[in-house]
Amino acid sequence: MKYTVITGASTGIGYEAALAFAGKNKNLIIVARSKEKLEQLEKEIKQINPDLDVIVKVSDLSVMENVYKLYEDLKKYELETWINNAGFGNTGLVKDQELGKIEMMLNLNIEALTILSTLFTKDYSDTEGTQLINVSSVGGYSVVDNNVTYSATKFYVSAFTEGLAQELGKRGGKMKVKVLAPAATETEFANVALGVNNFDYEESTPRFHTAKEMAEFLMKLYESDKIIGIVDIQTYEFKLTDPVFNFRQSQTMKD
Amino acid sequence: MKYTVITGASTGIGYEAALAFAGKNKNLIIVARSKEKLEQLEKEIKQINPDLDVIVKVSDLSVMENVYKLYEDLKKYELETWINNAGFGNTGLVKDQELGKIEMMLNLNIEALTILSTLFTKDYSDTEGTQLINVSSVGGYSVVDNNVTYSATKFYVSAFTEGLAQELGKRGGKMKVKVLAPAATETEFANVALGVNNFDYEESTPRFHTAKEMAEFLMKLYESDKIIGIVDIQTYEFKLTDPVFNFRQSQTMKD
Repeated sequence: MKYTVITGASTGIGYEAALAFAGKNKNLIIVARSKEKLEQLEKEIKQINPDLDVIVKVSDLSVMENVYKLYEDLKKYELETWINNAGFGNTGLVKDQELGKIEMMLNLNIEALTILSTLFTKDYSDTEGTQLINVSSVGGYSVVDNNVTYSATKFYVSAFTEGLAQELGKRGGKMKVKVLAPAATETEFANVALGVNNFDYEESTPRFHTAKEMAEFLMKLYESDKIIGIVDIQTYEFKLTDPVFNFRQSQTMKD
Repeated sequence: MKYTVITGASTGIGYEAALAFAGKNKNLIIVARSKEKLEQLEKEIKQINPDLDVIVKVSDLSVMENVYKLYEDLKKYELETWINNAGFGNTGLVKDQELGKIEMMLNLNIEALTILSTLFTKDYSDTEGTQLINVSSVGGYSVVDNNVTYSATKFYVSAFTEGLAQELGKRGGKMKVKVLAPAATETEFANVALGVNNFDYEESTPRFHTAKEMAEFLMKLYESDKIIGIVDIQTYEFKLTDPVFNFRQSQTMKD
Protein backbone atom coordinates (compact mmCIF):
# COMPACT_ATOMS: atom_id res chain seq x y z
CA MET A 1 0.00 0.00 0.00
CA LYS A 2 1.41 3.35 -1.11
CA TYR A 3 1.09 6.71 0.61
CA THR A 4 1.21 10.41 -0.15
CA VAL A 5 2.87 12.45 2.62
CA ILE A 6 1.79 16.06 3.11
CA THR A 7 3.45 18.29 5.71
CA GLY A 8 1.64 21.35 7.03
CA ALA A 9 -1.64 19.53 6.35
CA SER A 10 -3.71 21.05 9.16
CA THR A 11 -4.75 24.22 7.26
CA GLY A 12 -4.57 26.04 3.96
CA ILE A 13 -3.01 24.53 0.84
CA GLY A 14 -1.86 21.40 2.71
CA TYR A 15 -5.36 20.68 4.01
CA GLU A 16 -6.98 21.13 0.60
CA ALA A 17 -4.19 19.16 -1.10
CA ALA A 18 -4.92 16.22 1.22
CA LEU A 19 -8.59 16.33 0.17
CA ALA A 20 -7.56 16.56 -3.51
CA PHE A 21 -5.26 13.51 -3.22
CA ALA A 22 -8.04 11.67 -1.38
CA GLY A 23 -10.23 12.46 -4.39
CA LYS A 24 -7.64 10.60 -6.49
CA ASN A 25 -7.88 7.62 -4.10
CA LYS A 26 -4.48 8.12 -2.54
CA ASN A 27 -3.73 6.89 0.98
CA LEU A 28 -2.42 9.73 3.06
CA ILE A 29 0.11 10.50 5.79
CA ILE A 30 -0.80 13.92 7.11
CA VAL A 31 1.68 15.88 9.24
CA ALA A 32 1.22 19.04 11.32
CA ARG A 33 1.47 20.32 14.91
CA SER A 34 -2.27 20.19 15.67
CA LYS A 35 -3.68 16.73 16.41
CA GLU A 36 -7.19 18.15 16.53
CA LYS A 37 -7.03 19.69 13.06
CA LEU A 38 -5.44 16.57 11.57
CA GLU A 39 -8.22 14.42 13.05
CA GLN A 40 -10.78 16.78 11.54
CA LEU A 41 -9.04 16.37 8.17
CA GLU A 42 -8.96 12.59 8.62
CA LYS A 43 -12.76 12.66 9.13
CA GLU A 44 -13.24 14.69 5.95
CA ILE A 45 -11.00 12.32 3.98
CA LYS A 46 -12.99 9.33 5.22
CA GLN A 47 -16.18 11.01 3.98
CA ILE A 48 -14.64 11.27 0.49
CA ASN A 49 -13.49 7.65 0.52
CA PRO A 50 -13.89 5.45 3.62
CA ASP A 51 -11.52 2.83 2.20
CA LEU A 52 -8.47 5.10 2.24
CA ASP A 53 -5.81 4.60 4.86
CA VAL A 54 -5.00 7.83 6.72
CA ILE A 55 -2.06 8.13 9.11
CA VAL A 56 -1.92 11.14 11.40
CA LYS A 57 1.52 12.35 12.48
CA VAL A 58 1.69 15.16 15.01
CA SER A 59 5.05 16.89 14.69
CA ASP A 60 6.66 20.34 14.87
CA LEU A 61 9.11 20.29 11.96
CA SER A 62 10.88 23.48 13.02
CA VAL A 63 12.75 21.22 15.48
CA MET A 64 15.32 19.09 13.63
CA GLU A 65 15.16 16.03 15.89
CA ASN A 66 11.42 15.83 15.09
CA VAL A 67 12.24 15.96 11.39
CA TYR A 68 14.57 12.94 11.56
CA LYS A 69 12.13 11.11 13.82
CA LEU A 70 9.24 11.68 11.41
CA TYR A 71 11.19 10.21 8.51
CA GLU A 72 12.36 7.28 10.65
CA ASP A 73 8.73 6.59 11.71
CA LEU A 74 7.66 6.54 8.05
CA LYS A 75 10.38 4.10 6.95
CA LYS A 76 7.94 1.21 7.42
CA TYR A 77 5.51 2.59 4.79
CA GLU A 78 5.87 2.51 1.03
CA LEU A 79 5.79 6.13 -0.08
CA GLU A 80 4.70 7.37 -3.49
CA THR A 81 4.62 11.16 -3.17
CA TRP A 82 6.16 13.57 -0.67
CA ILE A 83 4.90 17.13 -0.46
CA ASN A 84 6.94 19.56 1.64
CA ASN A 85 4.24 22.16 2.20
CA ALA A 86 4.94 23.21 5.81
CA GLY A 87 6.38 26.71 5.99
CA PHE A 88 5.59 30.23 7.11
CA GLY A 89 6.42 33.83 6.33
CA ASN A 90 7.50 36.99 8.08
CA THR A 91 6.39 40.44 7.00
CA GLY A 92 8.52 43.36 8.14
CA LEU A 93 11.84 45.08 7.51
CA VAL A 94 15.05 43.19 8.24
CA LYS A 95 16.00 45.78 10.86
CA ASP A 96 12.74 45.11 12.73
CA GLN A 97 12.63 41.35 12.47
CA GLU A 98 12.48 39.18 15.57
CA LEU A 99 15.30 36.66 15.34
CA GLY A 100 13.51 33.90 17.28
CA LYS A 101 10.77 33.82 14.63
CA ILE A 102 13.33 34.12 11.81
CA GLU A 103 15.37 31.16 13.09
CA MET A 104 12.21 29.06 13.31
CA MET A 105 11.35 30.09 9.73
CA LEU A 106 14.83 29.13 8.47
CA ASN A 107 14.59 25.81 10.31
CA LEU A 108 11.19 24.94 8.85
CA ASN A 109 11.30 26.48 5.35
CA ILE A 110 14.90 25.49 4.57
CA GLU A 111 16.45 22.96 6.94
CA ALA A 112 13.49 20.59 7.45
CA LEU A 113 12.68 20.72 3.73
CA THR A 114 16.29 19.90 2.84
CA ILE A 115 16.55 16.99 5.28
CA LEU A 116 13.22 15.46 4.20
CA SER A 117 13.95 15.97 0.49
CA THR A 118 17.38 14.37 0.91
CA LEU A 119 16.12 11.35 2.86
CA PHE A 120 13.23 10.79 0.43
CA THR A 121 15.62 11.11 -2.54
CA LYS A 122 18.10 8.64 -0.99
CA ASP A 123 15.32 6.04 -0.70
CA TYR A 124 13.17 6.69 -3.78
CA SER A 125 15.22 8.40 -6.54
CA ASP A 126 15.17 5.18 -8.59
CA THR A 127 11.52 4.28 -8.01
CA GLU A 128 9.23 4.85 -10.99
CA GLY A 129 6.12 6.85 -10.18
CA THR A 130 7.45 8.67 -7.12
CA GLN A 131 7.30 12.42 -6.82
CA LEU A 132 8.70 15.06 -4.52
CA ILE A 133 6.86 18.39 -4.61
CA ASN A 134 8.29 21.33 -2.65
CA VAL A 135 6.09 24.35 -2.04
CA SER A 136 7.97 27.56 -2.80
CA SER A 137 6.30 30.88 -3.65
CA VAL A 138 6.30 33.56 -6.34
CA GLY A 139 8.48 35.24 -3.67
CA GLY A 140 11.02 32.51 -4.45
CA TYR A 141 11.48 33.97 -7.95
CA SER A 142 11.27 37.71 -7.25
CA VAL A 143 12.22 39.37 -3.96
CA VAL A 144 9.23 40.87 -2.16
CA ASP A 145 9.70 44.21 -0.40
CA ASN A 146 9.04 44.10 3.34
CA ASN A 147 9.23 40.28 3.16
CA VAL A 148 12.90 39.93 2.22
CA THR A 149 14.03 37.14 4.55
CA TYR A 150 10.94 35.04 3.76
CA SER A 151 11.55 35.58 0.03
CA ALA A 152 15.16 34.48 0.43
CA THR A 153 14.03 31.22 2.09
CA LYS A 154 11.85 30.58 -0.96
CA PHE A 155 14.71 31.39 -3.38
CA TYR A 156 16.54 28.61 -1.55
CA VAL A 157 13.56 26.26 -2.03
CA SER A 158 13.24 27.11 -5.73
CA ALA A 159 16.97 26.74 -6.47
CA PHE A 160 17.37 23.56 -4.41
CA THR A 161 14.30 21.89 -5.91
CA GLU A 162 14.96 22.92 -9.52
CA GLY A 163 18.57 21.79 -9.07
CA LEU A 164 17.56 18.42 -7.64
CA ALA A 165 15.05 17.92 -10.49
CA GLN A 166 17.79 18.67 -13.02
CA GLU A 167 20.54 16.60 -11.42
CA LEU A 168 18.21 13.58 -11.23
CA GLY A 169 16.82 14.14 -14.74
CA LYS A 170 20.30 14.35 -16.20
CA ARG A 171 21.29 11.04 -14.60
CA GLY A 172 18.11 9.14 -15.50
CA GLY A 173 16.65 9.18 -11.98
CA LYS A 174 13.06 7.95 -12.03
CA MET A 175 11.65 10.16 -9.27
CA LYS A 176 10.07 13.42 -10.45
CA VAL A 177 10.87 16.57 -8.49
CA LYS A 178 8.71 19.68 -8.78
CA VAL A 179 8.23 23.22 -7.44
CA LEU A 180 4.85 24.78 -6.68
CA ALA A 181 5.01 28.59 -6.53
CA PRO A 182 1.74 30.09 -5.25
CA ALA A 183 1.02 33.81 -5.09
CA ALA A 184 -1.31 35.27 -2.45
CA THR A 185 -3.58 32.44 -1.27
CA GLU A 186 -6.33 32.72 1.31
CA THR A 187 -4.87 30.73 4.21
CA GLU A 188 -3.43 31.34 7.68
CA PHE A 189 -0.29 32.61 5.89
CA ALA A 190 -0.93 36.35 6.28
CA ASN A 191 -1.89 36.06 9.94
CA VAL A 192 1.34 34.23 10.75
CA ALA A 193 3.52 36.49 8.57
CA LEU A 194 2.05 39.66 10.06
CA GLY A 195 1.65 38.31 13.60
CA VAL A 196 -2.07 39.12 13.67
CA ASN A 197 -5.21 36.97 13.87
CA ASN A 198 -7.75 38.82 11.74
CA PHE A 199 -6.22 39.32 8.28
CA ASP A 200 -9.01 39.63 5.72
CA TYR A 201 -7.92 38.69 2.19
CA GLU A 202 -11.13 40.09 0.65
CA GLU A 203 -10.44 43.46 2.19
CA SER A 204 -6.65 43.67 1.92
CA THR A 205 -5.49 41.79 -1.15
CA PRO A 206 -6.53 42.91 -4.64
CA ARG A 207 -6.26 39.38 -6.04
CA PHE A 208 -5.75 36.03 -4.39
CA HIS A 209 -6.53 32.37 -4.87
CA THR A 210 -8.42 30.21 -2.42
CA ALA A 211 -6.55 27.29 -0.87
CA LYS A 212 -8.85 24.96 -2.83
CA GLU A 213 -7.84 26.62 -6.12
CA MET A 214 -4.15 26.25 -5.22
CA ALA A 215 -4.69 22.57 -4.37
CA GLU A 216 -6.26 22.12 -7.81
CA PHE A 217 -3.17 23.75 -9.34
CA LEU A 218 -1.00 21.40 -7.28
CA MET A 219 -2.89 18.43 -8.78
CA LYS A 220 -2.27 19.83 -12.28
CA LEU A 221 1.45 20.05 -11.50
CA TYR A 222 1.37 16.52 -10.06
CA GLU A 223 -0.17 15.18 -13.26
CA SER A 224 2.14 17.16 -15.55
CA ASP A 225 5.62 16.45 -16.90
CA LYS A 226 6.71 20.01 -16.17
CA ILE A 227 8.94 20.85 -13.21
CA ILE A 228 7.45 24.21 -12.20
CA GLY A 229 3.88 25.22 -11.40
CA ILE A 230 3.76 28.97 -10.83
CA VAL A 231 1.12 31.67 -10.54
CA ASP A 232 1.64 34.57 -12.95
CA ILE A 233 1.67 37.64 -10.70
CA GLN A 234 0.19 39.84 -13.45
CA THR A 235 -2.70 37.67 -14.64
CA TYR A 236 -3.02 35.29 -11.66
CA GLU A 237 -3.14 32.41 -14.12
CA PHE A 238 -1.48 29.13 -13.17
CA LYS A 239 1.32 28.12 -15.53
CA LEU A 240 3.30 24.90 -15.91
CA THR A 241 6.86 25.71 -17.00
CA ASP A 242 10.43 24.49 -17.33
CA PRO A 243 13.02 25.45 -14.69
CA VAL A 244 13.56 29.19 -14.37
CA PHE A 245 17.15 29.39 -13.07
CA ASN A 246 20.19 28.56 -15.17
CA PHE A 247 21.66 25.15 -14.43
CA ARG A 248 25.27 24.56 -15.40
CA GLN A 249 28.32 22.43 -15.02
CA SER A 250 30.80 23.08 -12.25
CA GLN A 251 33.98 24.93 -13.19
CA THR A 252 36.20 22.31 -11.61
CA MET A 253 36.80 19.09 -13.48
CA LYS A 254 36.95 16.83 -10.43
CA ASP A 255 33.28 17.23 -9.48
CA MET B 1 37.98 54.14 16.58
CA LYS B 2 36.17 52.24 13.84
CA TYR B 3 36.55 48.62 12.82
CA THR B 4 36.05 46.34 9.84
CA VAL B 5 34.78 42.88 10.82
CA ILE B 6 35.67 39.93 8.59
CA THR B 7 34.37 36.42 9.31
CA GLY B 8 36.18 33.40 7.92
CA ALA B 9 39.39 35.42 8.03
CA SER B 10 41.84 32.59 8.69
CA THR B 11 42.28 31.53 5.05
CA GLY B 12 41.37 32.34 1.45
CA ILE B 13 39.37 35.42 0.47
CA GLY B 14 38.80 36.44 4.11
CA TYR B 15 42.52 36.39 4.89
CA GLU B 16 43.45 38.40 1.80
CA ALA B 17 40.54 40.80 2.38
CA ALA B 18 41.89 41.53 5.87
CA LEU B 19 45.28 42.40 4.36
CA ALA B 20 43.59 44.58 1.72
CA PHE B 21 41.60 46.50 4.37
CA ALA B 22 44.79 46.87 6.40
CA GLY B 23 46.33 48.41 3.29
CA LYS B 24 43.52 51.01 3.46
CA ASN B 25 44.43 51.68 7.12
CA LYS B 26 41.32 50.04 8.56
CA ASN B 27 41.34 48.58 12.07
CA LEU B 28 40.23 44.99 11.95
CA ILE B 29 38.22 42.44 13.89
CA ILE B 30 39.10 39.07 12.43
CA VAL B 31 36.93 36.02 13.15
CA ALA B 32 37.53 32.31 12.50
CA ARG B 33 37.86 28.98 14.31
CA SER B 34 41.68 28.83 14.27
CA LYS B 35 43.43 31.03 16.83
CA GLU B 36 46.81 30.14 15.35
CA LYS B 37 45.90 31.25 11.82
CA LEU B 38 44.30 34.46 13.08
CA GLU B 39 47.44 35.30 15.07
CA GLN B 40 49.50 34.71 11.94
CA LEU B 41 47.19 37.11 10.08
CA GLU B 42 47.47 39.64 12.91
CA LYS B 43 51.26 39.51 12.54
CA GLU B 44 51.03 40.14 8.79
CA ILE B 45 48.62 43.04 9.33
CA LYS B 46 51.02 44.62 11.84
CA GLN B 47 53.78 44.39 9.24
CA ILE B 48 51.62 46.38 6.82
CA ASN B 49 50.75 48.99 9.44
CA PRO B 50 51.87 48.60 13.08
CA ASP B 51 49.47 51.36 14.20
CA LEU B 52 46.33 49.44 13.30
CA ASP B 53 44.25 47.87 16.01
CA VAL B 54 43.56 44.19 15.38
CA ILE B 55 41.12 42.17 17.46
CA VAL B 56 41.20 38.39 17.18
CA LYS B 57 37.91 36.53 17.80
CA VAL B 58 38.04 32.76 17.84
CA SER B 59 34.56 31.43 17.09
CA ASP B 60 32.77 28.61 15.23
CA LEU B 61 29.84 30.41 13.60
CA SER B 62 28.08 27.20 12.59
CA VAL B 63 26.85 27.14 16.21
CA MET B 64 24.15 29.77 16.75
CA GLU B 65 24.94 30.57 20.38
CA ASN B 66 28.47 31.50 19.25
CA VAL B 67 26.97 33.80 16.62
CA TYR B 68 24.93 35.77 19.17
CA LYS B 69 27.88 35.82 21.57
CA LEU B 70 30.22 37.19 18.90
CA TYR B 71 27.87 40.07 18.12
CA GLU B 72 27.34 40.75 21.83
CA ASP B 73 31.12 40.83 22.39
CA LEU B 74 31.51 43.36 19.56
CA LYS B 75 28.81 45.72 20.88
CA LYS B 76 31.50 47.75 22.66
CA TYR B 77 33.29 48.62 19.40
CA GLU B 78 32.24 51.14 16.78
CA LEU B 79 31.86 49.18 13.55
CA GLU B 80 32.21 50.57 10.06
CA THR B 81 32.09 47.54 7.78
CA TRP B 82 30.87 43.98 8.31
CA ILE B 83 31.90 41.26 5.85
CA ASN B 84 30.11 37.91 6.16
CA ASN B 85 32.68 35.80 4.35
CA ALA B 86 32.59 32.57 6.43
CA GLY B 87 30.96 29.74 4.51
CA PHE B 88 31.70 26.42 2.87
CA GLY B 89 30.48 24.18 0.06
CA ASN B 90 29.53 20.59 -0.54
CA THR B 91 30.17 18.81 -3.81
CA GLY B 92 28.08 15.71 -4.52
CA LEU B 93 24.60 14.60 -5.49
CA VAL B 94 21.71 15.31 -3.12
CA LYS B 95 21.09 11.58 -2.73
CA ASP B 96 24.68 11.07 -1.54
CA GLN B 97 25.00 14.07 0.73
CA GLU B 98 25.86 13.65 4.39
CA LEU B 99 23.24 15.49 6.42
CA GLY B 100 25.54 16.41 9.31
CA LYS B 101 27.76 18.40 6.93
CA ILE B 102 24.70 19.86 5.14
CA GLU B 103 23.15 21.08 8.41
CA MET B 104 26.44 22.73 9.37
CA MET B 105 26.54 24.39 5.93
CA LEU B 106 22.96 25.69 6.29
CA ASN B 107 23.78 26.98 9.78
CA LEU B 108 26.89 28.83 8.65
CA ASN B 109 26.03 29.98 5.10
CA ILE B 110 22.43 30.97 5.85
CA GLU B 111 21.53 31.20 9.53
CA ALA B 112 24.70 32.84 10.92
CA LEU B 113 24.79 35.27 7.98
CA THR B 114 21.14 36.20 8.55
CA ILE B 115 21.56 36.75 12.29
CA LEU B 116 24.72 38.84 11.90
CA SER B 117 23.28 40.86 8.99
CA THR B 118 20.11 41.54 10.99
CA LEU B 119 21.92 42.61 14.17
CA PHE B 120 24.35 44.83 12.23
CA THR B 121 21.42 46.37 10.30
CA LYS B 122 19.47 47.03 13.52
CA ASP B 123 22.42 48.97 14.93
CA TYR B 124 23.92 50.68 11.86
CA SER B 125 21.28 51.10 9.12
CA ASP B 126 21.17 54.85 9.73
CA THR B 127 24.92 55.38 10.09
CA GLU B 128 26.56 57.09 7.10
CA GLY B 129 29.64 55.29 5.79
CA THR B 130 28.76 51.82 7.07
CA GLN B 131 28.71 48.82 4.78
CA LEU B 132 27.57 45.22 4.98
CA ILE B 133 29.12 42.91 2.38
CA ASN B 134 27.88 39.32 2.12
CA VAL B 135 29.93 36.82 0.16
CA SER B 136 27.73 34.79 -2.15
CA SER B 137 28.96 32.98 -5.27
CA VAL B 138 28.27 32.75 -8.99
CA GLY B 139 26.51 29.58 -7.78
CA GLY B 140 24.08 31.95 -6.06
CA TYR B 141 22.88 33.14 -9.48
CA SER B 142 22.95 29.90 -11.48
CA VAL B 143 22.51 26.42 -10.01
CA VAL B 144 25.67 24.31 -10.24
CA ASP B 145 25.29 20.62 -11.08
CA ASN B 146 26.64 18.28 -8.40
CA ASN B 147 26.69 21.25 -5.98
CA VAL B 148 22.94 21.87 -5.75
CA THR B 149 22.47 22.35 -2.01
CA TYR B 150 25.49 24.65 -1.76
CA SER B 151 24.16 26.66 -4.73
CA ALA B 152 20.79 26.97 -3.04
CA THR B 153 22.43 28.39 0.11
CA LYS B 154 24.04 31.03 -2.09
CA PHE B 155 20.73 31.82 -3.86
CA TYR B 156 19.49 32.57 -0.35
CA VAL B 157 22.48 34.86 0.30
CA SER B 158 22.04 36.68 -3.02
CA ALA B 159 18.28 37.18 -2.61
CA PHE B 160 18.50 38.17 1.06
CA THR B 161 21.34 40.62 0.50
CA GLU B 162 19.95 42.19 -2.70
CA GLY B 163 16.57 42.49 -0.96
CA LEU B 164 18.08 44.13 2.13
CA ALA B 165 20.04 46.56 -0.09
CA GLN B 166 16.83 47.48 -1.93
CA GLU B 167 14.59 47.79 1.12
CA LEU B 168 17.12 50.09 2.81
CA GLY B 169 17.79 52.07 -0.36
CA LYS B 170 14.08 52.64 -0.91
CA ARG B 171 13.64 53.98 2.63
CA GLY B 172 16.72 56.23 2.64
CA GLY B 173 18.81 53.97 4.89
CA LYS B 174 22.40 55.17 5.02
CA MET B 175 24.14 51.81 5.30
CA LYS B 176 25.24 50.27 2.00
CA VAL B 177 24.61 46.56 1.49
CA LYS B 178 26.46 44.58 -1.18
CA VAL B 179 26.91 41.08 -2.61
CA LEU B 180 30.27 39.65 -3.72
CA ALA B 181 29.87 36.68 -6.09
CA PRO B 182 33.20 34.95 -6.76
CA ALA B 183 33.66 32.11 -9.22
CA ALA B 184 36.34 29.44 -8.70
CA THR B 185 38.99 30.93 -6.39
CA GLU B 186 42.14 29.21 -5.20
CA THR B 187 41.38 28.69 -1.51
CA GLU B 188 40.55 25.85 0.89
CA PHE B 189 37.07 25.85 -0.69
CA ALA B 190 37.49 22.84 -2.99
CA ASN B 191 39.15 20.72 -0.30
CA VAL B 192 36.25 21.31 2.09
CA ALA B 193 33.55 20.92 -0.59
CA LEU B 194 35.05 17.67 -1.86
CA GLY B 195 36.18 16.36 1.54
CA VAL B 196 39.80 15.98 0.36
CA ASN B 197 43.06 17.67 1.33
CA ASN B 198 45.03 17.88 -1.90
CA PHE B 199 42.86 19.68 -4.46
CA ASP B 200 45.10 21.33 -7.06
CA TYR B 201 43.45 24.27 -8.81
CA GLU B 202 46.22 24.49 -11.44
CA GLU B 203 45.59 20.91 -12.42
CA SER B 204 41.81 20.63 -12.04
CA THR B 205 40.23 24.00 -12.83
CA PRO B 206 40.52 25.54 -16.29
CA ARG B 207 40.23 29.08 -14.93
CA PHE B 208 40.27 30.46 -11.43
CA HIS B 209 41.21 33.57 -9.50
CA THR B 210 43.66 33.72 -6.65
CA ALA B 211 42.33 34.75 -3.24
CA LYS B 212 44.38 37.94 -3.56
CA GLU B 213 42.67 38.80 -6.86
CA MET B 214 39.25 38.22 -5.29
CA ALA B 215 40.19 40.46 -2.33
CA GLU B 216 41.13 43.17 -4.85
CA PHE B 217 37.68 42.74 -6.46
CA LEU B 218 36.11 42.97 -3.01
CA MET B 219 37.90 46.33 -2.50
CA LYS B 220 36.54 47.53 -5.86
CA LEU B 221 33.02 46.59 -4.74
CA TYR B 222 33.63 48.30 -1.37
CA GLU B 223 34.64 51.52 -3.12
CA SER B 224 31.81 51.39 -5.66
CA ASP B 225 28.18 52.57 -5.53
CA LYS B 226 27.00 49.35 -7.15
CA ILE B 227 25.32 46.61 -5.13
CA ILE B 228 26.72 43.53 -6.90
CA GLY B 229 30.30 42.50 -7.63
CA ILE B 230 30.27 39.33 -9.71
CA VAL B 231 32.72 37.30 -11.76
CA ASP B 232 31.54 36.68 -15.35
CA ILE B 233 31.73 32.90 -15.71
CA GLN B 234 32.51 33.16 -19.43
CA THR B 235 35.27 35.78 -19.41
CA TYR B 236 36.31 35.62 -15.72
CA GLU B 237 36.17 39.41 -15.66
CA PHE B 238 34.95 41.12 -12.49
CA LYS B 239 31.83 43.22 -13.02
CA LEU B 240 30.06 45.74 -10.82
CA THR B 241 26.31 45.61 -11.49
CA ASP B 242 22.84 46.50 -10.26
CA PRO B 243 20.73 43.86 -8.49
CA VAL B 244 19.99 40.80 -10.61
CA PHE B 245 16.70 39.55 -9.15
CA ASN B 246 13.39 41.34 -9.57
CA PHE B 247 12.33 43.31 -6.51
CA ARG B 248 8.64 44.11 -6.16
CA GLN B 249 5.86 45.25 -3.90
CA SER B 250 3.90 42.74 -1.87
CA GLN B 251 0.49 41.78 -3.18
CA THR B 252 -1.21 42.52 0.12
CA MET B 253 -1.91 46.12 1.01
CA LYS B 254 -1.31 45.77 4.73
CA ASP B 255 2.42 45.11 4.45
